[in-house]
Amino acid sequence: MAEKKYVYMFTETDETMKNLCGGKGSNLGGMTKLGLPIPQGFIVTTEACTYYYQNKEQLSAGIVKEIEGALAALEKITEKQFGNPENPLLVSVRSGARVSMPGMMDTILNLGLNDEVVAGLAKTTDNPRFAYDSYRRFIQMYSDVVMGLAKSRFEEIIDEMKQERKIVQDTQFSATDFQEMIARFKAFYQQELHEEFPSDPKTQLFGAINAVFRSWENPRANYYRKINNIPSEWGTAVNVQAMVYGNMGETSGTGVAFTRNPATGENQIYGEYLINAQGEDVVAGVRTPSPIAKLHDDLPEVYQQFLEVAKKLEAHFKDMQDIEFTIENGKLYLLQTRSGKRTAQAALQIAVDLFEEGMVTKEKAIMLVQPEQLDNLLHPQFDQKALKSAKKIGEGLPASPGAACGQVVFNVTEALDLTKKGQKVILVRLETSPEDIEGMHVSEGFLTARGGMTSHAAVVARGMGKCCVSGAHNLEINEAEGYFRLGGQTFKKGDWISLDGSTGAVYGQKIPTVPATISGNFEKFMTWADEIRRLKVRTNADTPADAKQARAFGAEGIGLCRTEHMFFDATRIKAMREMIVSDTKEQREHALAKLLPMQRGDFEAIFEAMGNFPVTVRYLDPPLHEFLPTDPEDIKDLAKELNISEEKLNQKIASLHEFNPMMGHRGCRLSVSYPELAEMQTRAVMEAYVNVKKRNPKYEAVPEIMIPLIGDERELRFVKEIVVRVADEILKQNKMSVDYKVGTMIEIPRAALRSDHIAKEADFFSFGTNDLTQMTFGFSRDDAGSFLPHYYEKRILESDPFARLDQAGVGSLVKLSCDLGRSVKPDLKLGVCGEHGGEPSSVEFFHRVGLDYVSCSPFRVPIARLAAAQAVIKEKK
Amino acid sequence: MAEKKYVYMFTETDETMKNLCGGKGSNLGGMTKLGLPIPQGFIVTTEACTYYYQNKEQLSAGIVKEIEGALAALEKITEKQFGNPENPLLVSVRSGARVSMPGMMDTILNLGLNDEVVAGLAKTTDNPRFAYDSYRRFIQMYSDVVMGLAKSRFEEIIDEMKQERKIVQDTQFSATDFQEMIARFKAFYQQELHEEFPSDPKTQLFGAINAVFRSWENPRANYYRKINNIPSEWGTAVNVQAMVYGNMGETSGTGVAFTRNPATGENQIYGEYLINAQGEDVVAGVRTPSPIAKLHDDLPEVYQQFLEVAKKLEAHFKDMQDIEFTIENGKLYLLQTRSGKRTAQAALQIAVDLFEEGMVTKEKAIMLVQPEQLDNLLHPQFDQKALKSAKKIGEGLPASPGAACGQVVFNVTEALDLTKKGQKVILVRLETSPEDIEGMHVSEGFLTARGGMTSHAAVVARGMGKCCVSGAHNLEINEAEGYFRLGGQTFKKGDWISLDGSTGAVYGQKIPTVPATISGNFEKFMTWADEIRRLKVRTNADTPADAKQARAFGAEGIGLCRTEHMFFDATRIKAMREMIVSDTKEQREHALAKLLPMQRGDFEAIFEAMGNFPVTVRYLDPPLHEFLPTDPEDIKDLAKELNISEEKLNQKIASLHEFNPMMGHRGCRLSVSYPELAEMQTRAVMEAYVNVKKRNPKYEAVPEIMIPLIGDERELRFVKEIVVRVADEILKQNKMSVDYKVGTMIEIPRAALRSDHIAKEADFFSFGTNDLTQMTFGFSRDDAGSFLPHYYEKRILESDPFARLDQAGVGSLVKLSCDLGRSVKPDLKLGVCGEHGGEPSSVEFFHRVGLDYVSCSPFRVPIARLAAAQAVIKEKK
Repeated sequence: MAEKKYVYMFTETDETMKNLCGGKGSNLGGMTKLGLPIPQGFIVTTEACTYYYQNKEQLSAGIVKEIEGALAALEKITEKQFGNPENPLLVSVRSGARVSMPGMMDTILNLGLNDEVVAGLAKTTDNPRFAYDSYRRFIQMYSDVVMGLAKSRFEEIIDEMKQERKIVQDTQFSATDFQEMIARFKAFYQQELHEEFPSDPKTQLFGAINAVFRSWENPRANYYRKINNIPSEWGTAVNVQAMVYGNMGETSGTGVAFTRNPATGENQIYGEYLINAQGEDVVAGVRTPSPIAKLHDDLPEVYQQFLEVAKKLEAHFKDMQDIEFTIENGKLYLLQTRSGKRTAQAALQIAVDLFEEGMVTKEKAIMLVQPEQLDNLLHPQFDQKALKSAKKIGEGLPASPGAACGQVVFNVTEALDLTKKGQKVILVRLETSPEDIEGMHVSEGFLTARGGMTSHAAVVARGMGKCCVSGAHNLEINEAEGYFRLGGQTFKKGDWISLDGSTGAVYGQKIPTVPATISGNFEKFMTWADEIRRLKVRTNADTPADAKQARAFGAEGIGLCRTEHMFFDATRIKAMREMIVSDTKEQREHALAKLLPMQRGDFEAIFEAMGNFPVTVRYLDPPLHEFLPTDPEDIKDLAKELNISEEKLNQKIASLHEFNPMMGHRGCRLSVSYPELAEMQTRAVMEAYVNVKKRNPKYEAVPEIMIPLIGDERELRFVKEIVVRVADEILKQNKMSVDYKVGTMIEIPRAALRSDHIAKEADFFSFGTNDLTQMTFGFSRDDAGSFLPHYYEKRILESDPFARLDQAGVGSLVKLSCDLGRSVKPDLKLGVCGEHGGEPSSVEFFHRVGLDYVSCSPFRVPIARLAAAQAVIKEKK
Repeated sequence: MAEKKYVYMFTETDETMKNLCGGKGSNLGGMTKLGLPIPQGFIVTTEACTYYYQNKEQLSAGIVKEIEGALAALEKITEKQFGNPENPLLVSVRSGARVSMPGMMDTILNLGLNDEVVAGLAKTTDNPRFAYDSYRRFIQMYSDVVMGLAKSRFEEIIDEMKQERKIVQDTQFSATDFQEMIARFKAFYQQELHEEFPSDPKTQLFGAINAVFRSWENPRANYYRKINNIPSEWGTAVNVQAMVYGNMGETSGTGVAFTRNPATGENQIYGEYLINAQGEDVVAGVRTPSPIAKLHDDLPEVYQQFLEVAKKLEAHFKDMQDIEFTIENGKLYLLQTRSGKRTAQAALQIAVDLFEEGMVTKEKAIMLVQPEQLDNLLHPQFDQKALKSAKKIGEGLPASPGAACGQVVFNVTEALDLTKKGQKVILVRLETSPEDIEGMHVSEGFLTARGGMTSHAAVVARGMGKCCVSGAHNLEINEAEGYFRLGGQTFKKGDWISLDGSTGAVYGQKIPTVPATISGNFEKFMTWADEIRRLKVRTNADTPADAKQARAFGAEGIGLCRTEHMFFDATRIKAMREMIVSDTKEQREHALAKLLPMQRGDFEAIFEAMGNFPVTVRYLDPPLHEFLPTDPEDIKDLAKELNISEEKLNQKIASLHEFNPMMGHRGCRLSVSYPELAEMQTRAVMEAYVNVKKRNPKYEAVPEIMIPLIGDERELRFVKEIVVRVADEILKQNKMSVDYKVGTMIEIPRAALRSDHIAKEADFFSFGTNDLTQMTFGFSRDDAGSFLPHYYEKRILESDPFARLDQAGVGSLVKLSCDLGRSVKPDLKLGVCGEHGGEPSSVEFFHRVGLDYVSCSPFRVPIARLAAAQAVIKEKK
């Protein structure tokens, strides 16, 4: 067998090799093939990363040898030599996973410098300031990333020197100052680590490669992977690339640009650059860069060349690109291209445009929008009337659109504290950094004083689909003392502000919001998705309002209408409680008779709200004690109200106590014990149907009755007999006939295992994946919060199985159930009504196993529609 | 396709057709083929019963026609005619299911009588008293069984007539009295049902057949099936048989006899008969019958003939037989034969004897004892010393052996009430009847004043393996007022008595008991079982005492040594609680260090108690809050003891509260959160091993460590890494090496589904079928008591899935797990340690799916050994 190859030159790879070479490296290979100006380099593969972790975090001798070989090849290509002061090869060392994880892992620039090389560089470039600036940056980065010396300690030295020299900006340092700074840095390094700063370039190189691999497992990266569902097994590649310099003077520069506007999708180059700067200066947001259009004035030829390159890249990769570039002494170099992160609005615009420009097929266009992104468009926007009367207190860059309203917080801790209490917060920072990621995740939006449209805050906000206003220059912030001033007002932690990410406006108040609607591009795009998808999308809704919202979002019926919520209303709970404390069937029937007209009315309203779409009504599910009071005063009142003794009521409540109510007397078990409950609910459903049909003879939907918590076909048969008896009697009385359905939830593992038997009694199955996940894992959803964090931390679980279907375990039961059910009833209707019904990866799974529909909350309906279309496209591949 | 045949003449069937014709009918066919004297008749099959229930409880025209044809054939065989006063055919109509359900269903005798026929019968038999007695009995039975008029109403009429005539016994009634009685019965019938008593024999016949089918579903029969695990789908057959009469005078009689002694197994005819009586008189226990030996004096030829018949039947059926016979005018008729119910002691004796007599093979002998029966022999017997000083207060017949001690109850309600409170009871009755079945089931034993060795109480007691003293004639009982007098003492409800079912002695006090031992026939028989079985049998034991008891009963290791019980000891719980309320790892380790030597000591003692048999130690399983106090006073004390504030302790307790602790923070999840727990337990196990091995270098067993509640292979990997690290360190320190095992319980459905992955990390699987049943059904064992009774009542479940493995659901997961596990690790050791490990039908299942061992409580070890042997034999068939 041939030895596995762990290192690839850029010329040996292209974008088809993402899994092995990472996104960044394989795209650099692809661009090389296109003949674009790329500083050359090589890639240490993701498989080397896997090896590294399996081999106690060490590279093998073979990998080391391959790297040395690639380095020699790179020396040949660039005609420079590593460590040669006369003609030095300097490199950058960067991470590059399959998918972009911006800012999550480590990067080292200017590697290859030491005291001799820097002197040579100063001479050959005739630019000593540049050379020593690069060297001090390298020492800083290397010490931080490879050796773990905090960056802030070096910043302190810089600050000291500024004070000594009475200067304010880094740009005011001279070459001699940097030489002094380098000496102080090295002394600090020696003092802290008891060894000299490494002067051997190869030592530096391997140190950096190891550090990048290590950074794959840093907490930020782990957290990012968790929220983005990226498996830790993927690993990262390392890119070693010849350095080019944007900081060599006024004909040098560096920038990032998108081939289209990432906030709106507009088809126009969009980006920023800084003259005489290195890339980190742009991203860090320390200096505010110029818009890309200004390059036309500064370096017109380079601008023209860049426009051509951008068109070429977009045409090649068939998507909007996010390009990093550097200009070295008037020559353009591309450092990276990747599909650009974009807002949901931009994603839709770009997808529609690319299709209409003839650049992509409809199917490819559908794949250009991530279903989860739509969430962003579906959430409320500011109430326009309220907005008019609101007073703007300031303005920044419209870095990520949408409306956000929340209480001010200044750091991660505050953000977590307040959101844990259920508050909405807005994170206000001078500028954000990767350390803030967790706090950003829980915030409604971000407001920063510094940084441009491609600053950390802006990029992260668009990735998360959150609102961001960046670079609000008038904002005076004191993070240490916890306040900011803007528009003459002072705001402290907990004060309310509102942000408009589409205009950049900041408001010093709470502004009411209104629901989103689907129109324009969104509507057009969703129509394409609907043409492609096979899965129907229903909604979980218990009220006419929810039903209407879901229809507006494209729901094709209700897959789960819970009936218990209807009993919690203050006017109804009394009758419910009377039913529960009954001693006899007669007493129960008496109380149920009071509930009947109320429940019937609910169903009529919901049926009418759904027009001709079907409504699946689930019978009472929770344990009865949930309806009883727990507070002694409430119990006293209730006893009086029900005209029974407090003692009796307390006894009743005690008798309903359960050790594990999740697995107790609930669901269909209630109807087995009290058939009159199923009778009343059937009466309510069928009489509601009769009334609706009488009012509107064109009403077409048929009632669908769903029995929860079935574990055995005999249970279903028992309850179904009640349903059929009562339903047929009501239809007969009203001289009507309708092919109503009686089905069951599959949410008990045993039901999945016995689906061939249960299917004989059921018109449909609806998977209740919430309960099925609980029982398949043996995880109580209410209690798992105490130990699941330890499971993530120890990498036993990668994601919350209640949010994202566990396909390997719970999913295998779903598949088994589908197969068994259809084996006896090929046309058995199959759906899902657990919360997974609106989660894209789960929707894809449900498509694959052949369900007829998914049902999810109204706000997730468009997400499910898109995910269902993408599932069809992915399946074709 | 040929029409299905629903009716068979006795001559058309034999004992191979039990499923279709029922046990009684097919055996009557078999006896007919043997040429034995059988009153002929026909059988309406169990399939007709199934049809009856599927067809709204009605027979089809075809079945009616077949019955009429069979009746005509029977008239031909008997040369009598149905309804012909000159030469009347009278029949009995009886139930007969696949397995005997004594007394559970209905029987009607003397059918075919009406006013004309009875007159003819009186004339042809020249015995008017007999004829009218038969007729009044028929009216009584028919009214009760077919029409639902309570028997007691007729008894009231009889009592009235006795008072009028100032007589005491039924035998004192004259023929004329019976004629008067018949008139009163009919009048009562007319008054209650507004119709005349049916005089058409065919109407009577079809009424009776329908009634027998109906009786299959009466509550008694349902209850009997539930406790005996008989599926209700089996249905019953109906036997229609020509009547013969034991009540025709002094050369007539009726009796029941066993071919061997059903209490001891002694090879000697054993039974009772009554001269001039019908069968019901014997079974009802109203008159005390004579022992069968006395028949030698009364009717020597018949006695001789009976002995020959008994030998013939036993040789043919290869088992001890229970025979019902009637003598009509000096001629012997056999009404029924079946394998006789017997005590466990008798079953062993008979099995051993039949093998040693060469009548059956060893394998057949093994099948002659029901595993559950052994339970009886394993339970304590009276302490002989205590027995010597005990004062006997009375004596009855030794109807079913064993010792019983309990509090007196007089009826089912009292029995259920007291046993629900955890008390042991003895049911004391004048005589028992089928209505008492539920109360008998919960009692330790029965004491009756009337009835013989084959009375209802005696038969049921032997079937249930309970102690019974019957026919204690000196016992004066007042059931209505709730007391009895015996030996000059008065006993009320709740007073303690003791019964010796082997001697018939009754004691008015509590007598201590001693454990049973295995010796003699029992030992010999178990050796045979051990030769045959493949499954190993281990025990669940947490103490050296339990371990020793289990070894005495043949356990081959401990399959489940729970470690949590060890922490509840008063001296230990403090350290445990200290561990639980710890805030840091250091505090937890400090507390665990106190527990280590205690736990290590426990393991040493248990390892030594098991000799060279392996011990599987399960790590801490329950949620931690189970170790904390709930009473405010206790909390106060604990806070003081632990030197923390009450408030802090209350907070800690509150933070540990769970909504569904069964699916909460427990099992391996504790070690994931607190790895120091697994460390301490590993240390305790391995150091105990080291110490035992040092003391006894010949010690051979290897430690088996079992991780509970695994749902994913990564969980197991995580905990296993801790175990291996600590274990290897201890072995290294002690310069020892041992191939210790680390395995897992499979008790979470997901673990079963992912067994191919989990097997890679596990040395063994042990199925925790208790939890697996809970989660597969979604039944909380602690709460299911509130609804499972409704499930039995409504026939949704036939048996408690926690007692008897649900093979269709839970079993299918067990099988899947075995197959998946062995697919990646063919030699994976598989066992079960849930309570099903000692239940015979479940043991058979575990054998079939290929487990290596079952583990059960010490007292069930012999049962599992026998069940495992029977599984091998059944599999061969």
